[in-house]
Amino acid sequence: VTWATLPYGSFTTPHEPGRLRVGVRLDGPRAGRVLDLTAAGPALVGRHAGLFLGGTLDPLLAAGPTVWHEVRESLLAAWDTADERFTVPADAVTLHLPWTVGDYVDFYASEHHAANLGRLFRPDSDPLTPNWKHLPIGYHGRSGTVVVSGTPVRRPRGQRRTPDGEVVFGPSTRLDMEVEFGFVVGAGSRLGESVPQAAFADHVLGVCLVNDWSARDIQAWEYVPLGPFLGKSFATSVSPWVVPLAALESARVAPPPRDVPLQAYLDDRGSRWGLDVAFQVHLNGHPVSRPPLASMYWTGAQMLAHLTVNGASVRPGDLYASGTVSGPEPGQWGSFIELTRGGREPLTLPDRTTRTFLEDGDEVVVSAVAPGPDGAVVDLGSVAGTIVPAA
Amino acid sequence: VTWATLPYGSFTTPHEPGRLRVGVRLDGPRAGRVLDLTAAGPALVGRHAGLFLGGTLDPLLAAGPTVWHEVRESLLAAWDTADERFTVPADAVTLHLPWTVGDYVDFYASEHHAANLGRLFRPDSDPLTPNWKHLPIGYHGRSGTVVVSGTPVRRPRGQRRTPDGEVVFGPSTRLDMEVEFGFVVGAGSRLGESVPQAAFADHVLGVCLVNDWSARDIQAWEYVPLGPFLGKSFATSVSPWVVPLAALESARVAPPPRDVPLQAYLDDRGSRWGLDVAFQVHLNGHPVSRPPLASMYWTGAQMLAHLTVNGASVRPGDLYASGTVSGPEPGQWGSFIELTRGGREPLTLPDRTTRTFLEDGDEVVVSAVAPGPDGAVVDLGSVAGTIVPAA
Repeated sequence: VTWATLPYGSFTTPHEPGRLRVGVRLDGPRAGRVLDLTAAGPALVGRHAGLFLGGTLDPLLAAGPTVWHEVRESLLAAWDTADERFTVPADAVTLHLPWTVGDYVDFYASEHHAANLGRLFRPDSDPLTPNWKHLPIGYHGRSGTVVVSGTPVRRPRGQRRTPDGEVVFGPSTRLDMEVEFGFVVGAGSRLGESVPQAAFADHVLGVCLVNDWSARDIQAWEYVPLGPFLGKSFATSVSPWVVPLAALESARVAPPPRDVPLQAYLDDRGSRWGLDVAFQVHLNGHPVSRPPLASMYWTGAQMLAHLTVNGASVRPGDLYASGTVSGPEPGQWGSFIELTRGGREPLTLPDRTTRTFLEDGDEVVVSAVAPGPDGAVVDLGSVAGTIVPAA
Repeated sequence: VTWATLPYGSFTTPHEPGRLRVGVRLDGPRAGRVLDLTAAGPALVGRHAGLFLGGTLDPLLAAGPTVWHEVRESLLAAWDTADERFTVPADAVTLHLPWTVGDYVDFYASEHHAANLGRLFRPDSDPLTPNWKHLPIGYHGRSGTVVVSGTPVRRPRGQRRTPDGEVVFGPSTRLDMEVEFGFVVGAGSRLGESVPQAAFADHVLGVCLVNDWSARDIQAWEYVPLGPFLGKSFATSVSPWVVPLAALESARVAPPPRDVPLQAYLDDRGSRWGLDVAFQVHLNGHPVSRPPLASMYWTGAQMLAHLTVNGASVRPGDLYASGTVSGPEPGQWGSFIELTRGGREPLTLPDRTTRTFLEDGDEVVVSAVAPGPDGAVVDLGSVAGTIVPAA
């Protein structure tokens, strides 16, 4: 028995394209294969097999942390010896959005990203707003347009203001990626109650990679005073494999030192929910950035505590994301608006074309890994998307 | 046969508290009674009866405009002669949130409200931001905390900044209502496509009243730069009866004149989707305001066209709301922050107590009516909520 990441997803086979199944991606000696948990459930997870019959993660999410633990322990004990007839080649399956997204909240948890954007959007003010180190700033995004990796991303149309102050309408000319880390909420909470940081792992089943596509020109014109709306709502891509939080124990690190004293509900002295996840970003196959999640100021546990401190409830399927992951160095920035300094310094790709923002046909692939136990690697998979022309 | 509003809701009876049913509120000679459509479906709506067996509006919402029309025509023909055994007294039923809320978007469509708030929040700038008359400003709210009228509203806790700049944590001291009008989306749209204003009634089944409770102190500290978050996400109350858009034909009016030329997708010359809905707001039984929906700058048709112009899809169950409805006169403002001029001019109630913002135990009841055909009145019902102390 070997340790493995064992993330959960939903898939169909060419054989039965109408039958959604829950799969577990295998690695190690069985890399490149998917364990069909909808078929293998009775043999592998016993009385929890019913959770996987519907082919989505929804019942597992709602089942809560005791069941999550039991299912994962069963899978860790059996994945590399389970009957091979329960596995299928990963390259033969179609992956689907594996759960029903409830509310989607996007945070703004990277100090480097927030400062980079503050300098670009509000050049006459301090890079960070006065509230930034007191609370993890967040806002609600559109859950109905969360799509699985591989879904084409149509360039949005919208209003923008030209440099000479004219308001025009058309396809976005400043289409960007945002490399983010997502937390998938399982067990819900009750309206009027809060989820303390200590209960983070009781509510979050797992994590995924997120690309929160952003139209900077639409956003810049619309976002005062109520925040981003159409500049973000046209598509948010997520990786197809939800990696259990339990697989990231060896990746836990201390977050950066806190510069201002935090309110009790955000105080995380003594806890370690920073995560040493290393992202890689490729544009049309060419590496363009390596954002380090460990550099984030706010942790996922703090985000959940903040999100619920006012009594707002969470539901199974809620997704919250970190906001763009940007490290301190230019090669670690998670958006093109940062990498090209607001579009003023284009990137040159190996084919000698240049990029400020994304062009039709461009493909962005974001992948990530983290340390596992005993030298193992936690493969967080990837989230990919290709830009298709505006309608 | 008499014309009637015939709104849809979900109810249970004391007899069968576990069995959710779809009801239609009756008026005229049968005022005070609810038609049980889950029981009466086969007799009244024939082949559409199956839509009502589950007890929520979800299947009806997804069925689309042809079915909506057929069901309403059947009900208009039969409601006042249907077997009385299919009706129950309205005061004997418990009303529930009648549909599953998908995404919730909140707009900011009243010029008077936006200007009043601009003056309070940004006293050194123009009351309206430069974008305000070019597009209906909106943002996503939390759909998981939309609750049905009558649900107690727990005072939220959160961070706020005191007038001398200290950041403190505790129960909100500036808890407010926001009187709004809500649009319930039925038929969905495809990702990457837009919904033009002309298709508004093909996608919106009906309307409801909304109270978007707001903690002004939490909001003021958190909202720069990404908009409202915890100041709004703790609770949003909706009226229990969804009034078909088709019942509001006689309430349609021209919206206010447009002060700047609009992009083609927002241009509504020749359309008439202003709505002559008259709100009444009571605090602890005392009338405090009468906001007029007809004064809103942006219409529901424009909001839907804007929400989808970037290619964002809508789903059955999506809710979008107008933002606070405030008319030009002080007695027509839809929030206490406006009615008390930022808390500086308290209201005096008949019991000689005063109010700036809401106190524990306060009850807010928002009701509304609109003109129907031939002198009939469209009763939009009410949305009520009582503040309970912070956790």
